[in-house]
Amino acid sequence: MKKLLLLLFTTIAFAQADKVEPPFWWAGMHNPEFQVMFYGKNIAQYTPSVSNGVVITNVVKTENPNYVFVTIDTKNVPAQQLTFSFKNSKDKVAFTQKYEMKTRKEGSATRESYTSADMMYLLMPDRFANGNPNNDSTKDTNEKVNRENANGRHGGDIEGIIKNLDYIKELGATAVWATPLCEDNDKRGSYHGYGQSDVYKIDPRYGTNEDYLRLSAELKKRDMKLVLDYVTNHWGAEHWMYKDLPTYEWVHQFPGYSQSNYRMTTQFDPNASAADKRQCVDGWFVPSMPDLNQSNPLVLKYLTQNAIWWIEYADLDGFRVDTYSYNDKEGIAKWTKAITDEYPYFNIVGEVWMQNPVHMAYWQKDSKVGAIESYNSNLPSVMDFALYDALQWSFNDDQSGWDNGMQKVYNNFTNDFLYPNINSILVFAENHDTNRINQNYGGDFKKYQMAMAIVATVRGIPQLYYGSEIGMAGDKGKGDGDIRHDFPGGWAGDSNNAFTKAGRTKEQQQYFDVTSKLFTWRKSKEVIHTGKTMHYLPQDNVYVYFRYNDKETVMVVVNNAADSKTFGTARFAERLNGFASGSDVLTGKSIDVTKDITLEGKSVLVLELK
Amino acid sequence: MKKLLLLLFTTIAFAQADKVEPPFWWAGMHNPEFQVMFYGKNIAQYTPSVSNGVVITNVVKTENPNYVFVTIDTKNVPAQQLTFSFKNSKDKVAFTQKYEMKTRKEGSATRESYTSADMMYLLMPDRFANGNPNNDSTKDTNEKVNRENANGRHGGDIEGIIKNLDYIKELGATAVWATPLCEDNDKRGSYHGYGQSDVYKIDPRYGTNEDYLRLSAELKKRDMKLVLDYVTNHWGAEHWMYKDLPTYEWVHQFPGYSQSNYRMTTQFDPNASAADKRQCVDGWFVPSMPDLNQSNPLVLKYLTQNAIWWIEYADLDGFRVDTYSYNDKEGIAKWTKAITDEYPYFNIVGEVWMQNPVHMAYWQKDSKVGAIESYNSNLPSVMDFALYDALQWSFNDDQSGWDNGMQKVYNNFTNDFLYPNINSILVFAENHDTNRINQNYGGDFKKYQMAMAIVATVRGIPQLYYGSEIGMAGDKGKGDGDIRHDFPGGWAGDSNNAFTKAGRTKEQQQYFDVTSKLFTWRKSKEVIHTGKTMHYLPQDNVYVYFRYNDKETVMVVVNNAADSKTFGTARFAERLNGFASGSDVLTGKSIDVTKDITLEGKSVLVLELK
Repeated sequence: MKKLLLLLFTTIAFAQADKVEPPFWWAGMHNPEFQVMFYGKNIAQYTPSVSNGVVITNVVKTENPNYVFVTIDTKNVPAQQLTFSFKNSKDKVAFTQKYEMKTRKEGSATRESYTSADMMYLLMPDRFANGNPNNDSTKDTNEKVNRENANGRHGGDIEGIIKNLDYIKELGATAVWATPLCEDNDKRGSYHGYGQSDVYKIDPRYGTNEDYLRLSAELKKRDMKLVLDYVTNHWGAEHWMYKDLPTYEWVHQFPGYSQSNYRMTTQFDPNASAADKRQCVDGWFVPSMPDLNQSNPLVLKYLTQNAIWWIEYADLDGFRVDTYSYNDKEGIAKWTKAITDEYPYFNIVGEVWMQNPVHMAYWQKDSKVGAIESYNSNLPSVMDFALYDALQWSFNDDQSGWDNGMQKVYNNFTNDFLYPNINSILVFAENHDTNRINQNYGGDFKKYQMAMAIVATVRGIPQLYYGSEIGMAGDKGKGDGDIRHDFPGGWAGDSNNAFTKAGRTKEQQQYFDVTSKLFTWRKSKEVIHTGKTMHYLPQDNVYVYFRYNDKETVMVVVNNAADSKTFGTARFAERLNGFASGSDVLTGKSIDVTKDITLEGKSVLVLELK
Repeated sequence: MKKLLLLLFTTIAFAQADKVEPPFWWAGMHNPEFQVMFYGKNIAQYTPSVSNGVVITNVVKTENPNYVFVTIDTKNVPAQQLTFSFKNSKDKVAFTQKYEMKTRKEGSATRESYTSADMMYLLMPDRFANGNPNNDSTKDTNEKVNRENANGRHGGDIEGIIKNLDYIKELGATAVWATPLCEDNDKRGSYHGYGQSDVYKIDPRYGTNEDYLRLSAELKKRDMKLVLDYVTNHWGAEHWMYKDLPTYEWVHQFPGYSQSNYRMTTQFDPNASAADKRQCVDGWFVPSMPDLNQSNPLVLKYLTQNAIWWIEYADLDGFRVDTYSYNDKEGIAKWTKAITDEYPYFNIVGEVWMQNPVHMAYWQKDSKVGAIESYNSNLPSVMDFALYDALQWSFNDDQSGWDNGMQKVYNNFTNDFLYPNINSILVFAENHDTNRINQNYGGDFKKYQMAMAIVATVRGIPQLYYGSEIGMAGDKGKGDGDIRHDFPGGWAGDSNNAFTKAGRTKEQQQYFDVTSKLFTWRKSKEVIHTGKTMHYLPQDNVYVYFRYNDKETVMVVVNNAADSKTFGTARFAERLNGFASGSDVLTGKSIDVTKDITLEGKSVLVLELK
């Protein structure tokens, strides 16, 4: 009877673990060492074993008895359903846990990724389009929809993205970077998704995990790519594990709250104090985002497997990694290596928001700058924030001085030698954390056109921020909400529907046309994707550069002066030699390049030379 | 009779060459290959030979028949007087030329040089002190003395420097960098000396070559060092060789005048056009300064031997090289290597006036940044122009933002890892080409004191610009003359004589005292010369850093806020651990470092910790 009661008790108490993460895995991964986390009340009292002769190589229990981390060797283990058994101290099986090892999609390991042949469309799911008004608020999530609140949830979702993929494709985009879609159950500001509360589950206000798979499939149908915005640096304070931490050091804890100093230079500064470096890396980004400890092997493994899980599960084409340079630098390098070891062609672009090209270059894989300190981040791609600095404001400079106007744009490219892989850097004029350029340029279409022509024709992977292609403006000074307005037409009843030609205003159509023309043209232009660059010192605020390879040459002329300029072409002889004319991608007009060229103020030519 | 007449004609026409350069040389140099240039009317018609079994390895004649370049092998050739014989086409000796191979000073090759243990005093000879009023103008030089003209010659000379060496020493200086002293026979602006007309001769308005030797000897007597300001990039248009060029390509020539675009980024920019790079490197600095072609082996050899000649002749302790990064980069690297091959410990600091630390670091010997492009300049030392940028203005920022005030100073040091030899970079707040800091700081002594305390205590070789130590101001916006005023007391009859304590105003004495105190203290402080640095993020515009080694620790606190600040010292525990107090170098006061420190606005502490 006693035994029966005990058995009954155990069965009731432990039909199964509350959480098993990753929820399933795949046979035949490059790294055979796989760690499953089991979570449940006092689960650490049990001893795990596994079926079918699979070998457990390690079991980690922590100071929190609700967790057990079980590592198995999956080498030569075929796809199958495994069973984990948990025995109590009397060597009786207290409960069992089914665990599926799935079959990988063919070619999964060698999947291709986004490259400089792509154009990436960055959108914020909550603000793009509300495809399913039924999931705007849910019972289990804290923050409810409120479109009146600039920093609240507006109801955009995965369905909204899927419905408008043809629109995105029409722009010439070949990849979509959506800001995080996993559950962010913060009470306020959850719409941005960077304070995740469950990294294995799509936020129900965006849809389901299956909806995300459908997004991935719909993109593939259109020959387009899906880029997941991964956050290694922090979770949201509502994350279920943060509420019952596996170990004290899972997140960085301080007496009281300790905010990052945001001084990423401490990551390489040989003179930095350990205290300042710790404050940068371990301090929290904001109070609602506990800072993860990537130097802890359990954390690192958790984040690594979660990232790989999403790639394999959702058939992803790439990552963007948030606040890359705020992570423990050794930890994040291991994370990145583990992923690219699994998927050698998988691209990952890290947010390294610094001002000096040498600082961005430090973080790119195989950097010679990083190598000065024997550091290799393994990160394939970084963001060209120095170019962003130039593109955000330079078109307001009617005259070019020592380092403003077109000279500032030119200056950025003089440092290209610092990057180990210049074709794999992200090129952008703005993103979801910056002023919108149409704000900075006061809605001057000509300035937008110059900026986009540059983004579309220089080296690297171009990125467009949703809405700018129809002239949307936004001032970060007024708060993040102002740079993250709803896309017009994304909500039923919107008076303006910019998703369709019929719905666009004349001005929106003008912005759309030039954007679509440039990036659609770019799609097939190998000379832009991988060609060399030659640029010339701006003169009179006129900047001329060439992209060229053995087969083609494109000449770009930007006249950022307020008035019309006429200039000779003799100084460009190195590249113009043999060419007679250029066909302008924007207007289709033919320009004689053997004679003086006249170009009106604030305008640009993108000439295919013949 | 015919023969006799011919002999007579030859003898008259060629008693000897008009110029032989170098005028003499030394036996036992590291590089045995030595080239003598003979110059005279149609001298190229003769065939040279040399006495005492010395081997001529090469004879170069150019399109100008007035030059012949004779290379001899000096290996195992002892000091002696050689005789070069020049034969005519009939194999008769037309004339002979004595040539002295001198004995080197013992230890010449292994001479020491300036290091971070030194402090370099930069002065402009024409503006420092007029020790010999008899040479203010000379018959053979174009520009005559005119003290009324801010850009004219004022009469300062070598004798003036020698007379005031004790003054310079009293400041704590251990090395003197005088701007060029060789003849500059330009008609205007010759006082700066960068347009040299004879690089083997001291300008007679400064004195004689022997006076220069005396300056060197007088410095040595005082345990001080002489640094010559070498100009490889250009000569003056009055240079005698420019008026009869050995070869067309001795200088860079263009159709019409072609000025440098000053864009030194073209030196490493992989995207730069050859045309822009050529314009930078080959274009002239100003119309009066023909740009030398360091890629021409004859030019390079001439410049190399001239430089070595001055080291050996004047027993020099180091070079500063003008406009280093405007030279042909391969040529200048060879020049620098040839000199440091002869003198392995000889220091050479090159002027690389760029804004980004990575660009300066590119040019230092064994740079990992330069190595990205397989470039090695061989240059031991560069100038920290990024720190200069910060020191010129930051003390006017009463509040520190993201990148101004003390943060700007701090930021500079975060990039120290880019330099291959951080102790060998020149540290300065101003020089003869910049605004004077006392101008920028409106004569605010406290700001000067902060700037000098930093220059005196950070890594590198500190440099002081003459006159600032007595509060001299000057605005480059008004022309170079304004930043190069005469030192008061340097001219007989000057109403104010700042060279002597008695002659100084109270304010001048205040500037002098702090300067002298800091740099005299620094002389014996190994911890400053070669210690490590640890710095802390500025808070409230208060910047704290430490210099430390196994024996000593110095704590520097700069309060750049307008008002008094009190701050705890707990965050400095990494360095303060074990220390109880610090003795302030400036005031001698003892400060308890275990408690809060209060420091008045715009002030600095230099604490030797105990």
